[in-house]
Parts: sequence; C-alpha cells; structure tokens
Amino acid sequence: MPLMRVDMIKGRSKEEIRQILDIAYQVASEEFHLLPRDRYQIVTQHDPSEMIIEDVGLGFNRTDRFIMFSITSSPRQLEDKKRFYARLVKELHEKTGISPEDVMINITCNTKEDWSFGMGEAQFLNGKL
Amino acid sequence: MPLMRVDMIKGRSKEEIRQILDIAYQVASEEFHLLPRDRYQIVTQHDPSEMIIEDVGLGFNRTDRFIMFSITSSPRQLEDKKRFYARLVKELHEKTGISPEDVMINITCNTKEDWSFGMGEAQFLNGKL
Amino acid sequence: MPLMRVDMIKGRSKEEIRQILDIAYQVASEEFHLLPRDRYQIVTQHDPSEMIIEDVGLGFNRTDRFIMFSITSSPRQLEDKKRFYARLVKELHEKTGISPEDVMINITCNTKEDWSFGMGEAQFLNGKL
Repeated sequence: MPLMRVDMIKGRSKEEIRQILDIAYQVASEEFHLLPRDRYQIVTQHDPSEMIIEDVGLGFNRTDRFIMFSITSSPRQLEDKKRFYARLVKELHEKTGISPEDVMINITCNTKEDWSFGMGEAQFLNGKL
Repeated sequence: MPLMRVDMIKGRSKEEIRQILDIAYQVASEEFHLLPRDRYQIVTQHDPSEMIIEDVGLGFNRTDRFIMFSITSSPRQLEDKKRFYARLVKELHEKTGISPEDVMINITCNTKEDWSFGMGEAQFLNGKL
Repeated sequence: MPLMRVDMIKGRSKEEIRQILDIAYQVASEEFHLLPRDRYQIVTQHDPSEMIIEDVGLGFNRTDRFIMFSITSSPRQLEDKKRFYARLVKELHEKTGISPEDVMINITCNTKEDWSFGMGEAQFLNGKL
C-alpha cells in the first residue's frame, strides 16, 4: 500500500516506463512517508483509441505521452497529497520531459484492514506492519 | 473527474468503441451535471477468458457484448446515480443495440482533494475548478 | 458485487486462469456470504515490466506467478475479510501450487447504491436484491 495503477498509451520503451515508475515510487515514498519497499505498481498500456482524456476546461494540451496515475491507499493527509501531486509532475518533467499538462492523478481511499500483502495475513492488523 | 473505466471483450471496431464512449460521456455529463470537457475515459479490452460475469440470480443473459463501467468520482446524489444508470443503458440500447442485460455499472467515491487534472495542482482546492 | 479485478503476468494457460478464478470466487462466495451467482471477475495480464511488486519489508519472494486481487465491494465485516485473505491464499496454494508469498489482496469499499447489475436498475435499492 499504496497500490499505484498507471495507464498510458502504447509506444514507450521498457526503460522509459521503468524510469517513470521509479520516479513515481520515489516521490510517493517520500511525500507519503512510506515504509521501505512499500512499492506496488501496475501499468496498463492502451491503444490511443482506448483513452479519451480532456481537461475539464483547464486548457491543457494532452498528447500521446499522457499518464493517468490511479492510487489506492489508506487515508493520506491533505498536505501530503498536494506535495505529491506537485512533486510528481515536477520530477517527471525535469527527468523525462513529460509535460506537466500530460499528468493526471486520482486517489481512492480504503483502510488498513483492506490489505493483505502476502501469506493471507492482514499485516496492518497483526502487528507485522 | 469522474474517471470512467470501461472493460469489454475484444472484437469491437474503434468506431463502435468511440460511439459507446461518446454516449457514456454525454449521459454522465448531463445526469451528473458535469463541467464542460470533464471527460476521462479508459478502455481495457479482454480475451473472453478474462471476464467472468454472472448475474447474482437476476436472470440476465450476458453475451460477448457485455460492458462493465467502473466510475471513480467525488460523491454523487442518489437520484443522479439512478438516472445515470437508467439512461446510460437506455441510450446504449437505442443507439447501438447493446442489450440492457449486457451493461453493468459500479461507482467508487473519493473526494475533491483526491484529484489533480494536470500541472501537479489540486484544482478543486486552489480555486481553478 | 463484489467486483474482483485480477492482475497477473502473462504466461498462464486459460485453464490455469480459470482455476484461479474459480477458487477465488468460491472462497469469496463463502467467506463474504454472497448470493448465488454473485460473480464478477476481470483479469488483466501484463508484461513483466508492467508490474513492480515489492514487499514493504516483509521478506516475501515475489515471482512471475504473483497475483494481485483488487476487490470493490459494499462494506464487509473485518472478520470476514481476514478469513477471506487466509483461505484464498491457502486454497490457491493447495490447489494450484501458487506460493502464499505471491498473493496480494486489496479491498475498496463503496455502497449498495453504487451498483447496477443490468437493465439500468439499482437492484439493491428497488427490492430485486
């Protein structure tokens, strides 16, 4: 936890995808104060016809490099979310050239009892986390 | 917001998928009173073996044209949800022939602070939306 | 409801995937006390580069057989969740050989008004369920 789903249009190299995931994990780890190795990322790549992404009137220019990050997590502080949004977009831009207009993020909240990381245990409840 | 994920079995043309997405967006826009261009849709197409969809005893005949709409949104009014369900299914049937028995919808709720539409900003919090 | 999304790395046969889904449905049905045929499962298969799954320091050995179960459901009892986690992992191991270290589960909660199973109706609200 958190689980980060990443939807993008096909065409990136494995190396570019790995770099995006590394940046997103690093930023999440720091801004959400994650435990070490709290990394769960799943990418789904799509044909351009499978993603229709507009801008709710904000005037963004979306390109084929657009990325949607969808995060499922136990509750997070508002200030941490805001810092995560800002820093994820900034670092993706600085390190990979992805436009800040091409990054969208959404978070869905669950609770600590909603996670089993392996072995069929609820590790947030049994003292292992 | 809302983000609409659409899971379906492979085999539709791009034109048919586009028509489905256009209908779903139009109905959501009207029944959920969305701002203009509040459109975020992601399709994932599956092999038939990847989707097992029964009917919780309601007697529906599911076919390969089945569609699952999974929506993530800030809270919506109950009456709006009911109208959205009814009208989405009705319009898909009237305009594309998809059976009302082949359309399933689920909604998951988050909050306004859980969205960044671009630029690393939380636009519902900073006054831009 | 519940909707069970299953993410895994490509390489399994259709028969193996079906067996995994059958086990997961049977365990969910019993431990969550589901109505008959309350079965909604969607698999997405990924290239190994599309899934980065670590262990939040718990020492698990993740392999290419790793499975992530992501469940959307109306609220469930804590004890039912714990039994579901334990039994799903146990049965997958006993019946398919999948390691308990290779199974991760997360649950996201919505409400009864968030489901339409077909026909554009909210069946939990109109007395049909």
